[in-house]
Amino acid sequence: MTVLDPLPAHLVDDLVRRTLAEDLGLAGDLSTDAAIPADRWGVADLVARQAGTIAGLDVALAVFAAVDARTSATAEVADGDRVDVGTIVARVQGPTRALLTGERGALNLLGHASGIATATHEVVDAVAGTGARIVDTRKTTPGLRALEKHAVRCGGGHNHRFGLFDAVMLKDNHLVAAGGIRAAVAAVRERIGHTVHVEVEVDHLEQVPEALQAGADSILLDNLDDDALRAAVEVVAGRAITEASGGITPARARAVAATGVDVISLGWLTHSAPRLDVALDLRARR
Amino acid sequence: MTVLDPLPAHLVDDLVRRTLAEDLGLAGDLSTDAAIPADRWGVADLVARQAGTIAGLDVALAVFAAVDARTSATAEVADGDRVDVGTIVARVQGPTRALLTGERGALNLLGHASGIATATHEVVDAVAGTGARIVDTRKTTPGLRALEKHAVRCGGGHNHRFGLFDAVMLKDNHLVAAGGIRAAVAAVRERIGHTVHVEVEVDHLEQVPEALQAGADSILLDNLDDDALRAAVEVVAGRAITEASGGITPARARAVAATGVDVISLGWLTHSAPRLDVALDLRARR
Amino acid sequence: MTVLDPLPAHLVDDLVRRTLAEDLGLAGDLSTDAAIPADRWGVADLVARQAGTIAGLDVALAVFAAVDARTSATAEVADGDRVDVGTIVARVQGPTRALLTGERGALNLLGHASGIATATHEVVDAVAGTGARIVDTRKTTPGLRALEKHAVRCGGGHNHRFGLFDAVMLKDNHLVAAGGIRAAVAAVRERIGHTVHVEVEVDHLEQVPEALQAGADSILLDNLDDDALRAAVEVVAGRAITEASGGITPARARAVAATGVDVISLGWLTHSAPRLDVALDLRARR
Amino acid sequence: MTVLDPLPAHLVDDLVRRTLAEDLGLAGDLSTDAAIPADRWGVADLVARQAGTIAGLDVALAVFAAVDARTSATAEVADGDRVDVGTIVARVQGPTRALLTGERGALNLLGHASGIATATHEVVDAVAGTGARIVDTRKTTPGLRALEKHAVRCGGGHNHRFGLFDAVMLKDNHLVAAGGIRAAVAAVRERIGHTVHVEVEVDHLEQVPEALQAGADSILLDNLDDDALRAAVEVVAGRAITEASGGITPARARAVAATGVDVISLGWLTHSAPRLDVALDLRARR
Amino acid sequence: MTVLDPLPAHLVDDLVRRTLAEDLGLAGDLSTDAAIPADRWGVADLVARQAGTIAGLDVALAVFAAVDARTSATAEVADGDRVDVGTIVARVQGPTRALLTGERGALNLLGHASGIATATHEVVDAVAGTGARIVDTRKTTPGLRALEKHAVRCGGGHNHRFGLFDAVMLKDNHLVAAGGIRAAVAAVRERIGHTVHVEVEVDHLEQVPEALQAGADSILLDNLDDDALRAAVEVVAGRAITEASGGITPARARAVAATGVDVISLGWLTHSAPRLDVALDLRARR
Amino acid sequence: MTVLDPLPAHLVDDLVRRTLAEDLGLAGDLSTDAAIPADRWGVADLVARQAGTIAGLDVALAVFAAVDARTSATAEVADGDRVDVGTIVARVQGPTRALLTGERGALNLLGHASGIATATHEVVDAVAGTGARIVDTRKTTPGLRALEKHAVRCGGGHNHRFGLFDAVMLKDNHLVAAGGIRAAVAAVRERIGHTVHVEVEVDHLEQVPEALQAGADSILLDNLDDDALRAAVEVVAGRAITEASGGITPARARAVAATGVDVISLGWLTHSAPRLDVALDLRARR
Repeated sequence: MTVLDPLPAHLVDDLVRRTLAEDLGLAGDLSTDAAIPADRWGVADLVARQAGTIAGLDVALAVFAAVDARTSATAEVADGDRVDVGTIVARVQGPTRALLTGERGALNLLGHASGIATATHEVVDAVAGTGARIVDTRKTTPGLRALEKHAVRCGGGHNHRFGLFDAVMLKDNHLVAAGGIRAAVAAVRERIGHTVHVEVEVDHLEQVPEALQAGADSILLDNLDDDALRAAVEVVAGRAITEASGGITPARARAVAATGVDVISLGWLTHSAPRLDVALDLRARR
Repeated sequence: MTVLDPLPAHLVDDLVRRTLAEDLGLAGDLSTDAAIPADRWGVADLVARQAGTIAGLDVALAVFAAVDARTSATAEVADGDRVDVGTIVARVQGPTRALLTGERGALNLLGHASGIATATHEVVDAVAGTGARIVDTRKTTPGLRALEKHAVRCGGGHNHRFGLFDAVMLKDNHLVAAGGIRAAVAAVRERIGHTVHVEVEVDHLEQVPEALQAGADSILLDNLDDDALRAAVEVVAGRAITEASGGITPARARAVAATGVDVISLGWLTHSAPRLDVALDLRARR
Repeated sequence: MTVLDPLPAHLVDDLVRRTLAEDLGLAGDLSTDAAIPADRWGVADLVARQAGTIAGLDVALAVFAAVDARTSATAEVADGDRVDVGTIVARVQGPTRALLTGERGALNLLGHASGIATATHEVVDAVAGTGARIVDTRKTTPGLRALEKHAVRCGGGHNHRFGLFDAVMLKDNHLVAAGGIRAAVAAVRERIGHTVHVEVEVDHLEQVPEALQAGADSILLDNLDDDALRAAVEVVAGRAITEASGGITPARARAVAATGVDVISLGWLTHSAPRLDVALDLRARR
Repeated sequence: MTVLDPLPAHLVDDLVRRTLAEDLGLAGDLSTDAAIPADRWGVADLVARQAGTIAGLDVALAVFAAVDARTSATAEVADGDRVDVGTIVARVQGPTRALLTGERGALNLLGHASGIATATHEVVDAVAGTGARIVDTRKTTPGLRALEKHAVRCGGGHNHRFGLFDAVMLKDNHLVAAGGIRAAVAAVRERIGHTVHVEVEVDHLEQVPEALQAGADSILLDNLDDDALRAAVEVVAGRAITEASGGITPARARAVAATGVDVISLGWLTHSAPRLDVALDLRARR
Repeated sequence: MTVLDPLPAHLVDDLVRRTLAEDLGLAGDLSTDAAIPADRWGVADLVARQAGTIAGLDVALAVFAAVDARTSATAEVADGDRVDVGTIVARVQGPTRALLTGERGALNLLGHASGIATATHEVVDAVAGTGARIVDTRKTTPGLRALEKHAVRCGGGHNHRFGLFDAVMLKDNHLVAAGGIRAAVAAVRERIGHTVHVEVEVDHLEQVPEALQAGADSILLDNLDDDALRAAVEVVAGRAITEASGGITPARARAVAATGVDVISLGWLTHSAPRLDVALDLRARR
Repeated sequence: MTVLDPLPAHLVDDLVRRTLAEDLGLAGDLSTDAAIPADRWGVADLVARQAGTIAGLDVALAVFAAVDARTSATAEVADGDRVDVGTIVARVQGPTRALLTGERGALNLLGHASGIATATHEVVDAVAGTGARIVDTRKTTPGLRALEKHAVRCGGGHNHRFGLFDAVMLKDNHLVAAGGIRAAVAAVRERIGHTVHVEVEVDHLEQVPEALQAGADSILLDNLDDDALRAAVEVVAGRAITEASGGITPARARAVAATGVDVISLGWLTHSAPRLDVALDLRARR
């Protein structure tokens, strides 16, 4: 059972609270409160209905505790683990009302994060042995960036910058406005902290030497074909990190990785991965 | 230009604030603040890179105003409109810094919502002429339910209940715990308000008459094949709303609609629709 | 001891937090912190000073735990129970400071909710045997709608819609703007979800047939006298739910109920019911 | 037109936001969005349906602006003004949708605050000429203390302390725990700031001299009859502020005031005053 | 071990949450999560590196519990206690990750508050025996007023008013606008509650009699030299509280106190006191 | 007039709101509301009472607009500018009440941030010409990190990492737990994103080669004397960034800079810099 770095506790609280507030509103769970006696106790399994990679289990299980502090949950797998159809992911017990009321919120969190982890894992598998890292982008679902980037890590991927605040990425508009790559990098270095990484985005192979000379820490090779990528890697020769980006599908990832780039970024992982189907099976008890 | 009901203003504010807080953190946009002069002014177009249906335009444009109150935006299409590759969706002008700083947040909101609207529209198109409504579920992305349900409406779909609080859905667990369909519906009716709709979920055709007699307002026919759906519709004969559900893919929707059901619900619309690709093209000005 | 559906936990947290923030400010309880030693322990009873119906006990007791996690509370009655003068409603023990600091906040919540439950109960009693339901309105105290609607349920009443979001009510202004009852109902049905209830408000008996034909789920009979109400009930003949509304005092409720209407709504329950007097009696211990 | 001190802007924002969030939820105003065209413009009057004293007008009008920034409002009276049946309190214009969507929230705030102001005014009138002040207590509705205390000022009353944080009130439990009045006041004086007022609550006339000697700034005479109040006033002889409290009804206020006490406090003003009926009359325009 | 009045629990929660949110962001503690195994357990001491007075210990220790609920902490001293170089202030045990992740946030809170307590204590010591109180001002660090005023109490000082809301201070601008001291005090007394203290600020000895006649509860003697202060104290002769203010350094406090003023206020305590150096020493265990 | 990167708008809003909420509470500015007529209009200057460097001017001026939207402000200098005693920093006009009510909150923000900028500037001046950067630490005041780091930039300093989330700093405890510098760096590199900077803290000169070989991006030389710093710089020879840290006073900074280190970090800048004295001078107008 892998142990990954968890989400900070204040983010878990926020996610759980928003999830429940949205689903319960002012009136709560009308169906369950009316149909299920308050003193009924139950056990429920979270069961995978598809094979995939789990992510977000802690935050999903925290939903039940937030509905009713008398529930308790046991994780049977951990974030980052692979599951098959039928794998029991976790077991939750407590008042039956709480199990049913928390079900959808918990599954929405778990299914969304696990869908991203599963998609990531497939791409990571596809490039296995090449040395290329699969990384995410800032193309995340608003309000869920921390969870989604955690899910990428669960799938074996790595994180690109978390936002505009923790690394510099100079794109075409920045470069033009600043008067070219060298001027842009120089202006940025003058102002930012010494721990901030500077990446320069290039569209053409010819820009690579200039980015190198400007002192970029990494170079984003945007929408280059495989030959150009290979050439860029040669030019760079380890003096900067090379990142391939731009419409890279899971199917194409292997070929891109074979060009020798260090990093492959895919927005698709976080903006379009389908969820993983996980269900809650209630087993009545008392 | 269609005019749909907008998101309530307090939800727009919340979405925009969360989106920006997540992307800007404590340090803001390091790249843009360093590379772009503060007095540079610009105009940018939001341009569709894929054909689809737009949703979430208001909230996306509100991102720029939240970055800098001196920006102004003009929508060229409206939520619910179809766009082609290359359609200009909106034009934003203001300080170039604000255009670049707000870009990703705005596009993440717009692309996510429009992806759902586009997916919904395809299914709505597929069932055109049948009289069946395409509706969403509670399988939404945590924190985004209002936006996602709005996107479904933009795509020509309709909304199922928004949460546990605004309609009753009696599923297997409720029915068993309450002692059967009639007892469950009776218990619920006794407690809930007179404006609350009661839907009963059935797995077998044989349960339909009992649900009818119990007085269900609608009957969810879960995972029935087309023959069973057709039979259920006949049995119900307009005395309740019939809803088909359970793993209905866009491809299968037409056939399901042809069975005569009133409503078809698809979790896929909100939990797995890929985003619509919209980009920001900056045109320098001053 | 009745067990009613509780308030969702996140609402309880919010109410308690707001209540305490307002009463403690930045400096806390100056009197108690200065006059009562920190290690003094005590037991306190919440005692009814008036006969009535209890509501909001859970949220009231949660105040003490929020002041100091070392307090514990035992409810002696439950929400919905009738109490007499002198009935012990609950017992709380813990640091004496916490009992005194939490006292007013807890009693304000309990007294306010129980006042509404008590008022509701009196009206419910008045119509006993008629089959008419007593329901609330949206005329609630800002910020307290969930608690107040819970209190109405505790008093034996039922809830009308919780807000603008969970049912449609077409009033005069809507009907005129939309071009009459039929057009209005049709426009609304076209757009809203299939689980949304549609009520039409009418001021005159003559409008009832049109509302029926338009397919209203319920008809609000606004400010009709008893004869008109009786006539309306006959016209409707069970094809829609009939609701009497408009300045109905508790004293008049019985007569209104005798007209045969299904539902009687009273804004007075939530906007003008006086609080129920409950006090805290501290019994020193250590 | 009186100009009273307004509520701080951040409190107005909070009240408006909570009011609207509660009423609009995730789906907004289903009825209005479906029945009223988005481009319809209107004018509405807020009209008093009962005679009384206005309070909370600013916060009520802010509701419409929060629904739609294109609305504008003109107050025709001000907080603290008396109105008769039919008095136009304010006029609001803007999109008809916004007028209807904001109506109930605005009226709930206005009616609640004005109800308190009206009740206060009646008691203030009853004691006119006696020199006694009518003041509120901490028996307020949770979440609304600032608005309710503002309403008391609008009615011509004055505020007692706002919470546990801004003045000391030593009640029986404090006095016993601290070892008597003198010890309690001494302990408190030693710790609190020099700007903090110290009030001592006494149940018997005999305790008054001790409270005076202890140096109380004011003495709360709890549940004393009129003779005892008169005697207490004589004993105090202006050396402390005298406050009568404990179940004082509006009807009894005049007699209490005649005893010569400086201050009469009534919990009833804020916990049980019925709302003032104000309605919105929409006048279509465009 | 002194027991001071603690910060209200909701303020502790807020401070801890803001502190951690700011330090952990979306990604958490990258260093610790990568370098320290999740199952490593440890014990850490908070150790004073400077002599001083402790304040804020409760809130500092609450940081660790908020990072991971499995940590536990034991305070070895209490707020208000004096410590020497090397004094162990508290001991915390739990997952090593939590100890390291919470370290900086806890120390920032503790060091800031203890710095203020230490500075206060020095000034309090300097005036020992004179009867003068050392008090704070509203010149606090935004967001930290409650903690900073608590720290002043921990250092043996007292609190002036907490904000604009809990006492009146009439400064030059108020006095001029209102038409002089008497008019200003009269206008204020007419409106404010009977528990609100009124202080008048004077710049010249000649204003003191007018302030006294106006009925000021206290008189702030702003920037008077020691002779003038002494003269003012004589004039006042105990009929109001005298407060010296205006650029009073710790070095000058003794001389000011010797003039006989009741209260000496120093903005410096909260706006410029250097922090107290406290460190965390980790002792590995498992 | 320098133009620095501003604080993100959502942080400005938060700071302003917290500042005002803390100062105004529920009752607002009792003194000003009672003494100053509502229709009085005024102009006020923010004037430096000490020479120094300005920071936080935008957020300070935003306070007045938050008190009353009718105020307007004109900055006469910009963040980062030097001011002398008497320099007018900004001019604000609007209702006199708003100027007085916002005064203290605005000055607390401005004085705190400018104090840090001033302190930073002095140290930056001291090392002028050496090529060493002056940077801050995470020893900031809780809740104010973004403002304080902005203030350091205004003073000519640079920012170290903003939190635990945006760069790795491996300290003694991490190194020991991970099994030495090489193992620790390797473990971290394996998990973190490729844009994350890795700094290693060393206490002894002998550790420098190991840190270099481990591939640290920068090396924090903790508490080394000047000779050791000079030797470390020679050993590193530009292969990593060198940072001197540990009790470096402004007085010692020049000597440290002369050793050739790239970066000098001082916790003192943010945890102990005294505020800059700025005052508000009101000039009555109408």
